[in-house]
Amino acid sequence: MGENATTHHTNSANNGANDNQIGFKSRVSVIGSGSWGSVAAKLVAFNTLNLSSFHDEVKMWVFEETLQSGEKLTDAINRTNENVKYLPGIKLGKNVIADPDLDNAVKDANMLVFVTPHQFIDNICKSLVDKVRSDAEAISLIKGMEVKIEGPCLISTYISEQLGINCSVLMGANLANEIAEEKFSEATVGYRNNREIAEQWVQLFTTPYFMVTPVQDVEGVELCGTLKNVVAIAAGFVDGLDMGNNTKAAIIRFGLREMREFCKLLFSSVKDDTFFESCGVADVITTCFGGRNRKVAEAFARNGGKRSFDELEAEMLQGQKLQGVTTVREVYEVLRHRGLLELFPLFATVHEICSGCLPPSAIVIYSEKKNIFPV
Amino acid sequence: MGENATTHHTNSANNGANDNQIGFKSRVSVIGSGSWGSVAAKLVAFNTLNLSSFHDEVKMWVFEETLQSGEKLTDAINRTNENVKYLPGIKLGKNVIADPDLDNAVKDANMLVFVTPHQFIDNICKSLVDKVRSDAEAISLIKGMEVKIEGPCLISTYISEQLGINCSVLMGANLANEIAEEKFSEATVGYRNNREIAEQWVQLFTTPYFMVTPVQDVEGVELCGTLKNVVAIAAGFVDGLDMGNNTKAAIIRFGLREMREFCKLLFSSVKDDTFFESCGVADVITTCFGGRNRKVAEAFARNGGKRSFDELEAEMLQGQKLQGVTTVREVYEVLRHRGLLELFPLFATVHEICSGCLPPSAIVIYSEKKNIFPV
Repeated sequence: MGENATTHHTNSANNGANDNQIGFKSRVSVIGSGSWGSVAAKLVAFNTLNLSSFHDEVKMWVFEETLQSGEKLTDAINRTNENVKYLPGIKLGKNVIADPDLDNAVKDANMLVFVTPHQFIDNICKSLVDKVRSDAEAISLIKGMEVKIEGPCLISTYISEQLGINCSVLMGANLANEIAEEKFSEATVGYRNNREIAEQWVQLFTTPYFMVTPVQDVEGVELCGTLKNVVAIAAGFVDGLDMGNNTKAAIIRFGLREMREFCKLLFSSVKDDTFFESCGVADVITTCFGGRNRKVAEAFARNGGKRSFDELEAEMLQGQKLQGVTTVREVYEVLRHRGLLELFPLFATVHEICSGCLPPSAIVIYSEKKNIFPV
Repeated sequence: MGENATTHHTNSANNGANDNQIGFKSRVSVIGSGSWGSVAAKLVAFNTLNLSSFHDEVKMWVFEETLQSGEKLTDAINRTNENVKYLPGIKLGKNVIADPDLDNAVKDANMLVFVTPHQFIDNICKSLVDKVRSDAEAISLIKGMEVKIEGPCLISTYISEQLGINCSVLMGANLANEIAEEKFSEATVGYRNNREIAEQWVQLFTTPYFMVTPVQDVEGVELCGTLKNVVAIAAGFVDGLDMGNNTKAAIIRFGLREMREFCKLLFSSVKDDTFFESCGVADVITTCFGGRNRKVAEAFARNGGKRSFDELEAEMLQGQKLQGVTTVREVYEVLRHRGLLELFPLFATVHEICSGCLPPSAIVIYSEKKNIFPV
């Protein structure tokens, strides 16, 4: 399985718009090189090597660092074929070339994979203006866009507007380390209009252990990747209160339903079926049973809400912040602004618990409210 | 919370068809007294005591046994107000009256709750012919009907046909012990035509810690309760192969999708939304993370399929049989008979692993197949 498997794409369908030009080969660049970025480069590099419609070489932009040994990170990656800092022990494929120069990494590519931490995308896009090919297609693997009162700020939309190119998304139940080990996983590609472009992304990411399904619903797919963290916080509270399996399953289901209704509220084009995809129910399940949002929320509930999320994050996450806590505050503001809090009792209650207005046990009192006033 | 809570139903809606007759009070009998049956009696008894549209008394038919002490089980239940054998430590409500005489237990009731083990329902129905009120309504809480080649044999349909009365169903993420401890849980009532009847069942079962949602889809709701066990076996294989969270979430999602498609194949009336209810996604989650189907399947995979399910069941379940293994064999026969096995690769693969035709690792090879021939 994996690198040594023979290619199995011989009967695959369209190769996307560009491939209609005889002899045209797509060039792929990956922008980002954390653990998920490195895994993405590995998946992509496996396919560019095996498919005639792609140039073999995959450029990977790396935010340059000097390792303890004194070697540059890019040099170490190009020498060992491993991201020794963020994904040690995993060969990326010899056709992955680490490049510390962002402009140089993207200038020839017509397929751009964005997979940086959320907080870097702003500066990266700004420095890429007028630097990317005008016929380039982008895909964002970045989870965690902002939900502002005037509407959500989708990262795919931001990339698209800044660079003047189309941007799809790839989301799903994708713990990077498991994919790196070639354990079977799947993902959802959300695309806007062009099915052939979606097929090209599917082809670029699909491997024997990574199954990709295209869905014409960028907004639904991308919002799932953010909102699931709110559900995971609710699930963590249930764990911390030792409420048991029935309660946890119920809370996950309520959360999935509120995700769906919230997405449809923001974008009427969002499809119910998207929530049956990997980006929906599957990602919600992995996030509610693993993941740091769940874990810190459990600790919060076990402490009866007496230690703040800020304090627990500092202790448990080495300075990282929980996306779910930020997201649910933004979601709450959107709902309050529109006078719709009552229609989203789970989201509302999660925020009120996170902000200290309600005790963690309110996650169940919320549920009781639902009995008294059934929908 | 619970028994001592004041009633909160004052603003609830319809009381069902019968209640339109001024002064009419419904009489409820529970047929069955295992752990789930006893919990059902507790839920129902809380409401009959608090709602004016029901007689206080709830008859519970008990398959009579003599306890080690020499006391009859019914006498012990009526003396202690606990099912000392199957749900010790939980007060059922003083208005629950255990009765070993089936005919006597049902003769006055117009609301019959069936909650016996699956294998007893045949004889019970046969002995009840012409013994129940002609205006009675039934509800089945029994999971695990048979899927025969000529079509599935729904227990609700069987009860309905044998007794000449309408039969609804109640399913969901309902581990009995957790509900007995009044941990928040929810369930789905599937009803056929009459919304008022559904509301009456919702009213009878709803408590501050038990939320019930009605869905007009008897077949979808009832089939979920059986098919989830097949998905749990697949999830158990993934656990036994240590495939990780991504794989498990993917397999659960594929399973949920095949459940939906299988239900729609058998009954075109089945609704997509049913799978977002407690009986769908929530029950699948609890069953795939707890439950004996998952547990024995995990052991089967850890032994590389070298010890049969029969052997493992005998060792791990004290003589009980796994519903999932039986169900997936029946599902397989239906699909084979109709030439549709290729459309249900997960169900087909689970059966072929259970029956020893494929190794447990095939659960992932199945997934790889999906890459090569994407739907």
